[in-house]
Amino acid sequence: MSKGKLFVISGPSGVGKSTAIAEVMRQYPNLRFSVSATTREKRPGEVDGVSYFFLSREEFEKKRDNGELLEHAEYVGNYYGTPEAPVNAALEEGIDILLDIEPVGAMQVKARRPDAVLVFMAAPSFAELERRLVGRGDTAPDKIAKRLEKARWEYTQAPQYDYIVLSDKVQTTAGEILSIITAEKCKASDRRHLLEEE
Amino acid sequence: MSKGKLFVISGPSGVGKSTAIAEVMRQYPNLRFSVSATTREKRPGEVDGVSYFFLSREEFEKKRDNGELLEHAEYVGNYYGTPEAPVNAALEEGIDILLDIEPVGAMQVKARRPDAVLVFMAAPSFAELERRLVGRGDTAPDKIAKRLEKARWEYTQAPQYDYIVLSDKVQTTAGEILSIITAEKCKASDRRHLLEEE
Repeated sequence: MSKGKLFVISGPSGVGKSTAIAEVMRQYPNLRFSVSATTREKRPGEVDGVSYFFLSREEFEKKRDNGELLEHAEYVGNYYGTPEAPVNAALEEGIDILLDIEPVGAMQVKARRPDAVLVFMAAPSFAELERRLVGRGDTAPDKIAKRLEKARWEYTQAPQYDYIVLSDKVQTTAGEILSIITAEKCKASDRRHLLEEE
Repeated sequence: MSKGKLFVISGPSGVGKSTAIAEVMRQYPNLRFSVSATTREKRPGEVDGVSYFFLSREEFEKKRDNGELLEHAEYVGNYYGTPEAPVNAALEEGIDILLDIEPVGAMQVKARRPDAVLVFMAAPSFAELERRLVGRGDTAPDKIAKRLEKARWEYTQAPQYDYIVLSDKVQTTAGEILSIITAEKCKASDRRHLLEEE
């Protein structure tokens, strides 16, 4: 059996990542969504080990200092990160893993695991992303400005990704992500076993 | 508009290439099948410029010596090759090109055009390829032995390809090739335009 592959997806807030990922998971059941660890408070309805692994700061720092995290970052006073052990266990079982993380974390993953496949989700244009954020009408103008500033920075990181998928109709976007997964699993280096004489 | 991409497919005789390619072309109309040039005799029903570009040895050698061929080879006394000009014209128009050529030609293309995408079509196993060739029952034993010998050599070249697709049910095989085409067109280097601010 072939080992699983590690896929990382990033994209600015509002680009439509969650919808596309849900459709990809529906069409490709061998993909497991990685659960992150965090030190933030558990919210009502969240389940430990499903929504997040909820850790104390001490537990998180211990894992981080022991090199047990594939990537980690701090946002508004809370730690977020990806424990490596469950990822490795799934990959060994032949299950493909999908991480939905920010560019800083994605670059950490790429440095630690050069075989990871990085996918950036972009709007048809940056102007279109701006229109989408404004058009939703549920976000305060100062929040929109902040998100655009963040998106602008995220876009500067995108050329370091392996692929850029286009956030368009959900089927088209999911189709591009599924094609990338299928193609990556056809890489010659992963299919040497087909060439062996029995 | 983005430029087209150049795809090369190879695979041993009997592996099911033509059927898979026909299905790929049906599902992906932006793909143009490249017409080869040859010095062999035109057979009944063949059309110049459609089946092949039929050239005299002198015409072929002139093209070859002028560096107008993307790849070329000689089989049983006849020349075969791919004129580069029509390929370049189509790529400039944004049309993707598919070449169905032997490994020797594929390696020439890769050396000349490192951006070409090389796909090798393999049977589920080498033993299965042998079973398929024998099982057809329409090939003389000495011809089968020759084809297997050739296939064995072709398999040694496959690790130099970018991808290896599995010749299985036609929809599965065509699906893998279509995924490779879609994924290659999502490569970050080809999608920089999505990141520009208007």
